[in-house]
Amino acid sequence: MPTLVLLRHGQSQWNLENRFTGWWDVDLTEAGVTEAAAAGQLLAERGFDFDRCFTSVQKRAIKTLNLVLESMERLWLPVTKDWRLNERHYGGLTGLNKAETIAKVGEEQVKIWRRSFDVPPPPLEADSAYASLQADRRYAGVTVPATESLKDTIARVLPYFEAEIAPALRGGERVIVAAHGNSLRALEKQLSGISDADIVGLEIPTGQPIVYELGDDLTVKDRYYLSERG
Amino acid sequence: MPTLVLLRHGQSQWNLENRFTGWWDVDLTEAGVTEAAAAGQLLAERGFDFDRCFTSVQKRAIKTLNLVLESMERLWLPVTKDWRLNERHYGGLTGLNKAETIAKVGEEQVKIWRRSFDVPPPPLEADSAYASLQADRRYAGVTVPATESLKDTIARVLPYFEAEIAPALRGGERVIVAAHGNSLRALEKQLSGISDADIVGLEIPTGQPIVYELGDDLTVKDRYYLSERG
Repeated sequence: MPTLVLLRHGQSQWNLENRFTGWWDVDLTEAGVTEAAAAGQLLAERGFDFDRCFTSVQKRAIKTLNLVLESMERLWLPVTKDWRLNERHYGGLTGLNKAETIAKVGEEQVKIWRRSFDVPPPPLEADSAYASLQADRRYAGVTVPATESLKDTIARVLPYFEAEIAPALRGGERVIVAAHGNSLRALEKQLSGISDADIVGLEIPTGQPIVYELGDDLTVKDRYYLSERG
Repeated sequence: MPTLVLLRHGQSQWNLENRFTGWWDVDLTEAGVTEAAAAGQLLAERGFDFDRCFTSVQKRAIKTLNLVLESMERLWLPVTKDWRLNERHYGGLTGLNKAETIAKVGEEQVKIWRRSFDVPPPPLEADSAYASLQADRRYAGVTVPATESLKDTIARVLPYFEAEIAPALRGGERVIVAAHGNSLRALEKQLSGISDADIVGLEIPTGQPIVYELGDDLTVKDRYYLSERG
């Protein structure tokens, strides 16, 4: 039976500081490192194993995956890294503290950016401290977005899932995807058939393995947080 | 100009304990972790960068590479892991302390096993504490050797180099290989045209980046330890 485990990275420095992060390449905190290693230990204790691993090109997800694999004695597994599993690009909100942003533009506006399906935040300006993203060598050949709505994020995650991850699952491989709140929302929306209206409310906690047990056609047989099952 | 950096893993627990390691999956020591991170810092300071990374399926090499990439802010680079870059398989010597082995079988015999080109140590016995290697899932589909001479090691490293690493170099990519004393000897022998007699005497220190500047046909323009160049 194909098994897919989704894992949001452990706590990052900007999770801790309550700042919009998006594509900015923020590291894990010590707590995030501990969360990631614990996720790997939990997976190993419950007898999980994998054949293929996927992650983004952002260090908080890559390090989370590396820590999980180290805890599982599985550092030797093949890992594919792709920008299409990156976090949603938060545009001009990148780097801003969430509380300060609310104080500045109002709770209602921030709620629209964070919780609407298809309204992107304002674009990242060329003179932003974070504009170096556009020229980062890791995105050579990629049209780096200036901002993304959740809908935009889903529009790049799902073709990647169909092209790279779904074939591995259909072939019976056990897969782990270590990624981000919104790229994982895209996968959960697709697998669980969640509506546009509901997906924006799905909160995915850091460092908690989500298990999808799938049929050969990738229909969902079961979906649960591993920590909530005895 | 194609650039190839070779890096032997940082100090492992069995380097420290002076035990034959081979394919046993021994972890880095704290000193080894520090060495690996320092190698990455040195590479970054000297302006090195990479397009592709290769390593073995052994954690001491994989972790060394991960630490280097983290130091260089290059965790997002593609990494290929392959058993053919593993350390030489030390057969029945696996796990033995080198001094104790000398005391038991004599210095001359140990020197033959360690320093001859084509004499393998005795095979790993089926009742050895290390025989689980043969059934390790990471070697599914691989005929795990019971022992290897340096010649045997070279015979699996070089076809891999030709098939996977050399084409990347010929295509102008900058490559780092994080591997082991004997798999790196194989590469140095090939690139530098070292004789069978001389290669056994080439000592490769842990955690020291070796730089090969190559012509398009992979002829060696220069070869040096990065730490020895200003």
